[in-house]
Amino acid sequence: DKARRNAEGMLERFHKLGVQLRPHMKTHKTLECADIMTGGSRRCIVVSTLAEASFYADNGYDDILYAYPLPFDKVERCAELSERLSLFHIVVDNRLALQQLKKRPLKQGKIWDTSGVELTGIYAHCGNTYACQGEEQIKAVAQETTTIVLQFMEKLKAAGIQGVKSSIGSTPSCSHPVPDMAMLSEVHPGNYIFYDVQQSLIGSCRLEDVAVRVLTRVIGHYPHRNQLLVDCGWTALSHDGGGRLPTGYAIIEGHPELKLLSMTQEHGRVEPISGKLDIKQFPLGSLLTLMPYHACATAMMHPVYFVRSKGKVIDTWKPTRGW
Amino acid sequence: DKARRNAEGMLERFHKLGVQLRPHMKTHKTLECADIMTGGSRRCIVVSTLAEASFYADNGYDDILYAYPLPFDKVERCAELSERLSLFHIVVDNRLALQQLKKRPLKQGKIWDTSGVELTGIYAHCGNTYACQGEEQIKAVAQETTTIVLQFMEKLKAAGIQGVKSSIGSTPSCSHPVPDMAMLSEVHPGNYIFYDVQQSLIGSCRLEDVAVRVLTRVIGHYPHRNQLLVDCGWTALSHDGGGRLPTGYAIIEGHPELKLLSMTQEHGRVEPISGKLDIKQFPLGSLLTLMPYHACATAMMHPVYFVRSKGKVIDTWKPTRGW
Repeated sequence: DKARRNAEGMLERFHKLGVQLRPHMKTHKTLECADIMTGGSRRCIVVSTLAEASFYADNGYDDILYAYPLPFDKVERCAELSERLSLFHIVVDNRLALQQLKKRPLKQGKIWDTSGVELTGIYAHCGNTYACQGEEQIKAVAQETTTIVLQFMEKLKAAGIQGVKSSIGSTPSCSHPVPDMAMLSEVHPGNYIFYDVQQSLIGSCRLEDVAVRVLTRVIGHYPHRNQLLVDCGWTALSHDGGGRLPTGYAIIEGHPELKLLSMTQEHGRVEPISGKLDIKQFPLGSLLTLMPYHACATAMMHPVYFVRSKGKVIDTWKPTRGW
Repeated sequence: DKARRNAEGMLERFHKLGVQLRPHMKTHKTLECADIMTGGSRRCIVVSTLAEASFYADNGYDDILYAYPLPFDKVERCAELSERLSLFHIVVDNRLALQQLKKRPLKQGKIWDTSGVELTGIYAHCGNTYACQGEEQIKAVAQETTTIVLQFMEKLKAAGIQGVKSSIGSTPSCSHPVPDMAMLSEVHPGNYIFYDVQQSLIGSCRLEDVAVRVLTRVIGHYPHRNQLLVDCGWTALSHDGGGRLPTGYAIIEGHPELKLLSMTQEHGRVEPISGKLDIKQFPLGSLLTLMPYHACATAMMHPVYFVRSKGKVIDTWKPTRGW
C-alpha cells in the first residue's frame, strides 16, 4: 500500500508539472513495481544493468533507457536490444564510445546504421542531493542542476541542434521539484517506490512513507553484555550506511531506544542506546521489524519480496539479478 | 589453483595435529569448494543457514553442523534434517531452545525422541582473532580460546559428563594453530578457501594466497577530477570494510598507486592515492583486477564463480543462496 502510494504520488506530481516521469527500476527490479511506477503503461523506464533491460524487454516493456556509460564489451547486447525494441536509449560521454557504436551498424533500418549516431537527449543525475538535509537544501540543488541543464540546452540550440530531450533525476529532487523542472523533458527517480531511512533523513519523505522492512527474530539473550542477538546479518540488510545512525544500521520499528550495533554474516547484535536492556520485552523467538538505511542495498540481498497489504501477506514478487 | 592450495594446506595442518577439520561452507557455498575442503570425503562440514544444510544434504553430504543459535521457527526443518542425515548437529545456548526441541520428537529411533536431548559437543568461535595483527597476536587469542574451552571440558568431566567434543574456529587461529589445539576434537574455519585482503592484514595469509578477484572494466575518464570510472559498484564488491584501506574498498592488483575511493550501486570511482592520474595507462574498455577486502561479503554478491587455472577459465561454479 505504501509503495503504491509513493508511486502514485510521483506520477501525479510530474503529471501536474507536465514532465514525463521515467522511473528507475534499479531499486526493486520487479515487474510488479514497474507496472505501478509506469501507471500500467509499461513504457518509459530507466535501468542500471543490461540484465534489467532484457528482463523488462522480455516482459513487454519498451522505451528503455540504459542509464550507464556504455561499457565497450556490451555494445553487441545494446545493439540487439536496439533492434528488438522500438526505443532503447544508451548513454555515452566520450568519443571512443561513439566509434564503438559506429562499428556495429544496426539492422532493420534503425538509426545508427544510416546516419551514424543520433543525439536524442542529455542526462544529468543530481546525486549531490544525497548530501542535503531538508526540503530547502534539496530544492537548491534541484534548481542548480535544472539551471545548468537548461543552459546547456540553450547552447545546443544556438549550435543548431534541435529536438534534444533533457533529463535530471534523483529521488530527493523529484520528491520536491522546483517550478523550473517543468522545462525539462523527463525526470528519472527510482528509490521513491520504497524510500528508506536515508531518504527520510535527507527530507525526501516522512519515516512513515518507507515501504520496506526486514523482519528478524530474536535468537539470543546476553544480559551480561546487555545485548540481544537477532537472525539478521549483512546478508539480509547489507552494510550500507556504515552503522552511523544513532540507531546503528537500521531503525527498529516501535523501538527507538534500541540500536542495531553490528552484524556478522548471519547475526545482528542489538542493544539499548543507553541504560539496561529490558529483556522480558523481547522473548526468544519474537520478531523485530527493521527499517533499512538504504532500500536499494537491502533489496539487493533478497531473492523475493513478501507483499503486505492491510496487515496480510498477499503476494510474493521476484526481482531480476545480475548484469 | 590458489583455493586448492589453501584448502590442502589446512587439511594437512590439522591432519598433522591429529584434529578433525570441519570446514565452514558459508564463504563459498558451492559443492566444488566443499569437495576440495573435505578432501573428497563429503563428511564433516559446518553451515551458516538451513539453505546451505539442505543444499549439501541434497547432494550427498552428511555429518553437518548448523553452527547457529537455533531459531525457534526452524525446529521443524532441523528435525527433518536430523531424520534424513546420519548426523545433523544443532547449537543451543539457552534452556528454552531445549524445550523447543523436546516438543518435536524425532522419528526413526533418533536420539532426541528417546532421552530428551544429547549434548554432543561445545562450540566456541574466536571471532576476536579478527582484531589481531600478525601471527603472534593470533596465537595469543588461539591459546586463550583453547585454554578456556579445555578448562570447560575439565569441568564437564568433573560433573560426570563424558564423550563431549570440543570445537573452536576462525580462519586466523586455524592458519596459525598453537600446539594445545591438538587437544581439541575439531576446528571449523571457512574463509581460508579464498582468504582476502582483510586476512592478509590480520596475518592469516600472504596477499598472494588470496584466491578471489573481481574483474572490472574502465568505463569513464574524468581528468578534471583526476578519476577513472569502473563498472564495479557495491552490487559486485559489497561495502564491507567501509573503504578504510589505504587503497579504499579493495586492492587493485598491480596498481598499488590507485584507490577505489567510493562506489554507487553499479559504479566505482578510482583515483591515485597521490599525484596525477596517468590516464593513458587505463584505456576505456580495459580491465582492472580487484582483490576484495572481505571475500565472504563479495562472494555473496555473485550468482556464479568463473574458475581460473593456469591463466584459463576452466569451469563455472554456482553457490546456493537464501536461508
